[in-house]
Amino acid sequence: MPLSSRHLLGLAGVPKEDIQLILDTAVTFREVLERPIKKVPTLQGKTVVNLFFENSTRTRISFELAQKRLSADTVNFSTSTSSTKKGETFKDTVRNIEAMKIDMIVVRHQSAGVPQFLTQISNAHIINAGDGRHEHPTQALLDMYSIKERLGKLAGLKVCIVGDVAHSRVALSNIFGLKAMGADVSVCGPPTLIPKGIESIGVKVIHDIDKAIAEHDVLNVLRIQLERKAGSSIPTTREYHNYFGITADRIEKNNKDVVILHPGPINRGVEISSEVADGPYQVILDQVTNGVAIRMAVLYLLGTMNN
Amino acid sequence: MPLSSRHLLGLAGVPKEDIQLILDTAVTFREVLERPIKKVPTLQGKTVVNLFFENSTRTRISFELAQKRLSADTVNFSTSTSSTKKGETFKDTVRNIEAMKIDMIVVRHQSAGVPQFLTQISNAHIINAGDGRHEHPTQALLDMYSIKERLGKLAGLKVCIVGDVAHSRVALSNIFGLKAMGADVSVCGPPTLIPKGIESIGVKVIHDIDKAIAEHDVLNVLRIQLERKAGSSIPTTREYHNYFGITADRIEKNNKDVVILHPGPINRGVEISSEVADGPYQVILDQVTNGVAIRMAVLYLLGTMNN
Amino acid sequence: MPLSSRHLLGLAGVPKEDIQLILDTAVTFREVLERPIKKVPTLQGKTVVNLFFENSTRTRISFELAQKRLSADTVNFSTSTSSTKKGETFKDTVRNIEAMKIDMIVVRHQSAGVPQFLTQISNAHIINAGDGRHEHPTQALLDMYSIKERLGKLAGLKVCIVGDVAHSRVALSNIFGLKAMGADVSVCGPPTLIPKGIESIGVKVIHDIDKAIAEHDVLNVLRIQLERKAGSSIPTTREYHNYFGITADRIEKNNKDVVILHPGPINRGVEISSEVADGPYQVILDQVTNGVAIRMAVLYLLGTMNN
Repeated sequence: MPLSSRHLLGLAGVPKEDIQLILDTAVTFREVLERPIKKVPTLQGKTVVNLFFENSTRTRISFELAQKRLSADTVNFSTSTSSTKKGETFKDTVRNIEAMKIDMIVVRHQSAGVPQFLTQISNAHIINAGDGRHEHPTQALLDMYSIKERLGKLAGLKVCIVGDVAHSRVALSNIFGLKAMGADVSVCGPPTLIPKGIESIGVKVIHDIDKAIAEHDVLNVLRIQLERKAGSSIPTTREYHNYFGITADRIEKNNKDVVILHPGPINRGVEISSEVADGPYQVILDQVTNGVAIRMAVLYLLGTMNN
Repeated sequence: MPLSSRHLLGLAGVPKEDIQLILDTAVTFREVLERPIKKVPTLQGKTVVNLFFENSTRTRISFELAQKRLSADTVNFSTSTSSTKKGETFKDTVRNIEAMKIDMIVVRHQSAGVPQFLTQISNAHIINAGDGRHEHPTQALLDMYSIKERLGKLAGLKVCIVGDVAHSRVALSNIFGLKAMGADVSVCGPPTLIPKGIESIGVKVIHDIDKAIAEHDVLNVLRIQLERKAGSSIPTTREYHNYFGITADRIEKNNKDVVILHPGPINRGVEISSEVADGPYQVILDQVTNGVAIRMAVLYLLGTMNN
Repeated sequence: MPLSSRHLLGLAGVPKEDIQLILDTAVTFREVLERPIKKVPTLQGKTVVNLFFENSTRTRISFELAQKRLSADTVNFSTSTSSTKKGETFKDTVRNIEAMKIDMIVVRHQSAGVPQFLTQISNAHIINAGDGRHEHPTQALLDMYSIKERLGKLAGLKVCIVGDVAHSRVALSNIFGLKAMGADVSVCGPPTLIPKGIESIGVKVIHDIDKAIAEHDVLNVLRIQLERKAGSSIPTTREYHNYFGITADRIEKNNKDVVILHPGPINRGVEISSEVADGPYQVILDQVTNGVAIRMAVLYLLGTMNN
């Protein structure tokens, strides 16, 4: 049974069966990553273009490794070397790249909706690697994989997304994906970082971090994006840490069974203490490993479709 | 029958038989590009260095894809990360790279003659990917391939190169190649963009775009390189468009059988209207696809020579 | 017999047997580089990350070619695109990359000790590609390979390292390696460029270049790193050339059997004259070719260890 869509643009509206298929397929690739020879010939002769209009070390390398381990050919394209400097329209740039007979495009862009737009101008399979504040579906999929790996299930779990929900594409993809899989989702943070009316998509809002820890099986702790807008929405990083930082004290006081996720990069001492970031409650590096397996699964499922 | 030269530096002086061999070989690779697995093992174990001293998204990606689809190993070298910053001479940089046992070098450089110079200091096969205002032979080859694909022949055709001929390496390579193949070549543009005395290489000069459209089978419309010198040779882009822009009106009035080529990137509304750029007369994206096949053919023919 | 260490951090303390094993293994790979198909499947399915925090064209390309010719998968990571910009600690960046199931890391960093630090936070095999003024072991290994190739042995040879010894990681690695192999090592340069007390590691200090040429079998001529500190330790490059530059005159007057090495990039007319750099006494481009073979040997020996 193939995926119901030939693109992965986000998790909004994606049926449970598709998410389950990706998670199940990733289990196989997770095993490949433990072999001495971490490579399969599945996508040999297929070409994937990584179209990154925003810098991203870990996501770009994770996708690139996933592609190489599936034996695909990879071409990296970043803004800094692009013809967009020569006044070419974005649409023309993409159509030109696609005319070179590309099978898949992995795209990251600062504007929400760019991956969707690509599906209209290209025949390639499009994978969203993060678009503005909209979605980052492979991050949410690897988060769900890591939760399931630790707790054995997703349905019925209580998951709280903590921190800068307002500026986060990770939050939105997690909410859509987790709810599709039957989990209960809340968000926790200062009012300035929680979008007004988010309750309308079926999410509970909490402003007390101790309560969030106490009442949830999993906390997905978002990065305070100090280099972006978030910096101006909080008084100081110290005050943020005092009110919302995840510390060993808080975990031990409220809920020693909680599982801590963080999409990275971490601001140690801001949204999470070093003790927690390196401690027994977190699965942060498992998330990174699982991310390669998830991306291999998505590339495989899309790349082997009958068109 | 192999090529008569072990390099592709330009099309000036290249015999018709060589051009024919490249165009014929490209037909095979064009078919490979339609397969689900667009890859052949022909150049496995060969190393190609892409030595780009000027930015170029499409040409660099086109060459890189051609190399990967022939199973060659590819190393990218661009100025920004180069030892030339440490005061090393260009010659020493190239001789060092070549000492690592490189089979072929694809070079783009802002100075005319650099590819020729490389043949003196390196044993690798040299492919010119554009040198100053001199030549860009693979672009002219893919243009010829695209014309032949559309019209079935080159000999006897009337081709007009329109626009910034003075600053264009694409124009010069097209003139040499098309004339070798028996086509009739004209150029059309404002006097400031047509080199004085170009008639001496057997090219007719026209200053009236309607006449150019009416009297030719093919128009190869060059990019006004607004970021380079061309910007100062025309009054305004609007005025340029009014006098020399290729529009649907002009085509329909003068010659509905004309075929429009453009090497990209396009300045929509300057040298070509959007209606034409996306319309039935043009083969612009076919040129891009054919470019990969042409580059595969050139890499294959040079890379499999007995030295 | 495997190497005694699972990393190559430097040549200090490395036993003679290990150096001999690397040099012997490189002979095989040097032969592979003369074949039409310069590629072996040895490291297929292994992943190597090139973690370059300092620019280095030749070392990066040399390692990348070595990796590709061993059929390893290669991912390049450079500071300019890194999450270190987002405030992530160096340790977190490395642990994240390693969590993607990397087999080997080749690291260049401006700070001495970084490769050693990596061994504490990563399970990958670490290869030092240059750390601060500390070591650059593969450079010293290729220097030794090139000396042995020319003179048939290392034991008993008299080798002098000339120039900016104080700021050089190449000097230090050469001293450790050559002494382990039984060579006699001196250094020669102006007092400002020779570290105080270097005699304590068993090295003779000479300040007269004619004497250095006369009394040694090999001169390893270091680069005056004009872009770094060295610039301020010498009065002018002309004066440096007059007192310490290696010229054909000096060689012919003192010792026509001397062999000249230089790690590149060369400052022609500063530490070495063009006549010598291109002449019969030097093995500079052989060093570059041998560098690929040495790096293949090191990658192979570490990459095929039982962990």
